Amino acid sequence: MKKTDFIRKFNVNIDMAVEAHEILRGEIGEEVPGVRMTKAEFDHATVTKIDIETDQGVQEMGRPKGSYITIDAPEIRQNDYLVHNEISEVLAQELIDLMKLNDNSSILIVGLGNWNATPDALGPQVIDKTLVTRHLFQLSPDELKGKLRKVSAIAPGVLGITGIETAEVIRGLVEHVKPDWVIAIDALAAGSLERIGTSIQIADTGISPGSGVGNQRVGINEETLGCKVLAIGLPTVVNAAIIAHSCLEGVLDELKTSPSLYKLYKGFSPNALEHILSQALSPYSNNLMVTPKEIDTLIKSAARIIAGALGIALHPGITREEYQTYLQ
Amino acid sequence: MKKTDFIRKFNVNIDMAVEAHEILRGEIGEEVPGVRMTKAEFDHATVTKIDIETDQGVQEMGRPKGSYITIDAPEIRQNDYLVHNEISEVLAQELIDLMKLNDNSSILIVGLGNWNATPDALGPQVIDKTLVTRHLFQLSPDELKGKLRKVSAIAPGVLGITGIETAEVIRGLVEHVKPDWVIAIDALAAGSLERIGTSIQIADTGISPGSGVGNQRVGINEETLGCKVLAIGLPTVVNAAIIAHSCLEGVLDELKTSPSLYKLYKGFSPNALEHILSQALSPYSNNLMVTPKEIDTLIKSAARIIAGALGIALHPGITREEYQTYLQ
Amino acid sequence: MKKTDFIRKFNVNIDMAVEAHEILRGEIGEEVPGVRMTKAEFDHATVTKIDIETDQGVQEMGRPKGSYITIDAPEIRQNDYLVHNEISEVLAQELIDLMKLNDNSSILIVGLGNWNATPDALGPQVIDKTLVTRHLFQLSPDELKGKLRKVSAIAPGVLGITGIETAEVIRGLVEHVKPDWVIAIDALAAGSLERIGTSIQIADTGISPGSGVGNQRVGINEETLGCKVLAIGLPTVVNAAIIAHSCLEGVLDELKTSPSLYKLYKGFSPNALEHILSQALSPYSNNLMVTPKEIDTLIKSAARIIAGALGIALHPGITREEYQTYLQ
Amino acid sequence: MKKTDFIRKFNVNIDMAVEAHEILRGEIGEEVPGVRMTKAEFDHATVTKIDIETDQGVQEMGRPKGSYITIDAPEIRQNDYLVHNEISEVLAQELIDLMKLNDNSSILIVGLGNWNATPDALGPQVIDKTLVTRHLFQLSPDELKGKLRKVSAIAPGVLGITGIETAEVIRGLVEHVKPDWVIAIDALAAGSLERIGTSIQIADTGISPGSGVGNQRVGINEETLGCKVLAIGLPTVVNAAIIAHSCLEGVLDELKTSPSLYKLYKGFSPNALEHILSQALSPYSNNLMVTPKEIDTLIKSAARIIAGALGIALHPGITREEYQTYLQ
Repeated sequence: MKKTDFIRKFNVNIDMAVEAHEILRGEIGEEVPGVRMTKAEFDHATVTKIDIETDQGVQEMGRPKGSYITIDAPEIRQNDYLVHNEISEVLAQELIDLMKLNDNSSILIVGLGNWNATPDALGPQVIDKTLVTRHLFQLSPDELKGKLRKVSAIAPGVLGITGIETAEVIRGLVEHVKPDWVIAIDALAAGSLERIGTSIQIADTGISPGSGVGNQRVGINEETLGCKVLAIGLPTVVNAAIIAHSCLEGVLDELKTSPSLYKLYKGFSPNALEHILSQALSPYSNNLMVTPKEIDTLIKSAARIIAGALGIALHPGITREEYQTYLQ
Repeated sequence: MKKTDFIRKFNVNIDMAVEAHEILRGEIGEEVPGVRMTKAEFDHATVTKIDIETDQGVQEMGRPKGSYITIDAPEIRQNDYLVHNEISEVLAQELIDLMKLNDNSSILIVGLGNWNATPDALGPQVIDKTLVTRHLFQLSPDELKGKLRKVSAIAPGVLGITGIETAEVIRGLVEHVKPDWVIAIDALAAGSLERIGTSIQIADTGISPGSGVGNQRVGINEETLGCKVLAIGLPTVVNAAIIAHSCLEGVLDELKTSPSLYKLYKGFSPNALEHILSQALSPYSNNLMVTPKEIDTLIKSAARIIAGALGIALHPGITREEYQTYLQ
Repeated sequence: MKKTDFIRKFNVNIDMAVEAHEILRGEIGEEVPGVRMTKAEFDHATVTKIDIETDQGVQEMGRPKGSYITIDAPEIRQNDYLVHNEISEVLAQELIDLMKLNDNSSILIVGLGNWNATPDALGPQVIDKTLVTRHLFQLSPDELKGKLRKVSAIAPGVLGITGIETAEVIRGLVEHVKPDWVIAIDALAAGSLERIGTSIQIADTGISPGSGVGNQRVGINEETLGCKVLAIGLPTVVNAAIIAHSCLEGVLDELKTSPSLYKLYKGFSPNALEHILSQALSPYSNNLMVTPKEIDTLIKSAARIIAGALGIALHPGITREEYQTYLQ
Repeated sequence: MKKTDFIRKFNVNIDMAVEAHEILRGEIGEEVPGVRMTKAEFDHATVTKIDIETDQGVQEMGRPKGSYITIDAPEIRQNDYLVHNEISEVLAQELIDLMKLNDNSSILIVGLGNWNATPDALGPQVIDKTLVTRHLFQLSPDELKGKLRKVSAIAPGVLGITGIETAEVIRGLVEHVKPDWVIAIDALAAGSLERIGTSIQIADTGISPGSGVGNQRVGINEETLGCKVLAIGLPTVVNAAIIAHSCLEGVLDELKTSPSLYKLYKGFSPNALEHILSQALSPYSNNLMVTPKEIDTLIKSAARIIAGALGIALHPGITREEYQTYLQ
């Protein structure tokens, strides 16, 4: 079963455009039409930018037109704080380039996800570390101008906690706060274990319905909110079905060494493979997460890196030394 | 200095209508015109209802027209859980009588206050213990009807955490959730230490600007939200200025025993008294709270009592045994 | 590869004796010598008691001599609180039968695990809901006797948080508190997905080194602590290797339908299978957890059930109605 | 009533030696015998060292022999993080001078107080931000030597949470961890409002019985623990009785302007004054705290400053830039 077929069949989220792109290219063996990819290398990070430029690209990738930037930085998972600061700066630069803010720009940061479930708590933890300034402008706007920008922040909780669709909560906020940008932070589900805690994705398309660990049902994007939306995500889990699929693929590869066996295996009905996967994941279907034991420290580091980057990118007058101290 | 003068001068919040009423009556020595008071006795609670009925009552009391119900139950401060359950039931009955809900009523519960500051955390703690059901109605509305009502709940945080006026957050929510009632839960500042953790106030007028521990600046009421608003509050602090004032009054009472001394004391310029008070509270002015050491257990008990009452009052099909188990 | 071989090879914890027993019996096709199993049925629970009685039993089961009681109650995962209360009572009765406390018994409850990682937070959450009474006996011992027993409680954190082996922290406590019993609560790793949030295990042998989600390295048992130790656990995760193994077994079952294929598959070198598994779990080895998305509500329910049972079992004078209200 | 008499009469804690010293000197009008005081000025802090050197000093000050260092830094209450870093460095230098650690020194940091009550949560919040390293030395001791020291950390909770005297928990830990130093962090009760959030006290005598917001009953010092103990505290509250006393003193000062009145006032029986104070604080006695509304942000800043100082003082190989990033 091809990974794209498997993903569709088992309704597995692959939140990262860069992974969807890899899978597609692997299967079609050539460039995906309407999609442009560029790379840049930094000391502790590789930045891959995928631009979906045409309707054909949209259809192939199953994602709206826009820029999807992935920062691959495996050292996020290590406890080297000085390296983390460098990753923050790489992320900050991408945000600065994408957002092109001016002195009066107002930004609402939204931490998606469930603070009670560690693998889904990235968004709320970033909010906890965010420097909120919007209310200060009521007192002394002129003094702050050029140093700070108007930042407000909220972690709205998830449907099971509030009884309200998160997108609805945000829509209500946007109508009153009237920000120029919403930045939505979310924990992502990756397509492979290597991605957990090692990549950060920025998308200027916002968040499409049905993505993220908590499976946002309504989109959080310019169409639904009426303002520009940037999504920042970091994979914290992999759907358990992916592990199961990798095992089956592993058997396949092993059987390939004998042509006759391989032929037989290829003859397996897709139904049989589906059945094996379903059995392995029973009594759950596609709501099992695989996550490393040290998920709590990983989330904490990632929240620090992202909140640090937001500090640098959003507030022009904050020095490097200062923004670190804001991350309490 | 008369207490009303003192309160005005030092900008001290007296959140409870029943206290404002007591002070007024004490000073004018008769019924306050346009204000009606009735009392009812229960095993573990006394319920006092104050109705502000005329414009004169509004002016005297400094509060909008409406019903202000106070449940005095000193046993809230003790750890007798069975008595707490009885207090929950008294509160529930008052809510039922006031709200007159029907099967289709939808309620949004808002937990005001700052979860990071224990004396101000009553609202968020009630939300934590609230049974949220609104999202369940999307799946099986008929099954739930008559058993549960549509309840959503949020603790929106305070201005210093979000950068957004709480009333703005709620307004945005109300426009999308379109509830019939908003119930706002808040920690109150009492006018005397005896009230801390012993009284619950219900007001069908919502919350006026400038009240509560956190000093809500914009009102949360029918006028600002466009739906009915019920406020439930429990005093958790007393402004430190009240303690200072009590001391001065104590000296006064002592001096009264000697007519000549009393005359001299009465001759004190109000400025001198103000100066003494200001000195005693320096370098703070009116933002010092007095709160008992056991504030954490008090808030926990109170949150349980209020959340329990909401369970009984809002969901017709929940038995007494069940609602207790919801309070996890 | 036999499951026992696989488990040994991949160093996968199977914390539940009942599962180890099932696997063994499945493989040897008969009763495990030295191990006795009895069952009892209740309305909402099945109780299986496994007694390891001889040295041979110890060797086969890889566990010390003692009683391992499993309460299977799939309704733990549902939100029916009244059923949860019934499960609490079943658990309480088992605790009462095992512990045989007297009026003067003193109990130290220890909540193992990491409060920052939801799947490992069961122990700390039980502690949060535990009624602590030991200090009250200093004031009025006679009044409490026969109603309450001396209960103290602590969540000592994990090695990564404190820098101290948990067993060391507990040993220090036991030397000063001198309890008759230590009850250690921990989240477990199950051998199959069905067990997550549906079984509770009680072991009068305490906790052996190397078990639990957080992999306790030093045992917490009578030998190390010098007092009786009861362990209560509930599975919250499954090692991801188990999922991978199930998939391979699924392929095997499928191939079994053709004798010739089956023969070929059986001929796979164990190394090849190991390689497939390792690849599927790369870059992690045996520290990947599989857990359901709703892990937070599951842990909350389980903590309530266990804390409720402790209330009933440890305090003779607490009524059923009361203990529910203690669970705040 | 003299402040020392009042403090004794009302059983008001004055946790800071510098305050006790001020009051004493004010009353006796000269140097306190057996007590030496020295001062040093820094950019953002004044450091006052009080050495109690003789038995007479011990008796006058009501404190054991030892060094009591107070860092006065009013900017702790402001949100200038760069200044906070400087205050951290001043504190770190005092710790370094006092402790005289060597490469093999092992330190156990204990965060006293109740994490559920914000004004008492300083200790637990410092623990949250502390870099714990002791367990790392089991893996690679040589690599870490000279860079990190062995630090373990715990917030043991308070008597009402665990049922165990905090000093007992710590004693048990010390016997197993065998540290060279225990550093106990605690929120203090100040003798005047100006001290809240503006002073840090270091005492090489540990903590005496009956001090701190939570009123530690058993001492935490070299005598009880068998190792050196350093106490670090910061005032977060003032006993409400202090406010009441200040008011009475204010009236006194006012009356002083008229010699005849003053004489009369001096004639007030101490009983009358006591009665006035008791009335003003009724129904509470000496367990009412006065704390500013912004206590949550104050505690957060203070925890950051103290944890930062511990990072610099305890780990020789951590750079200034690094330790800030550890404070997540």
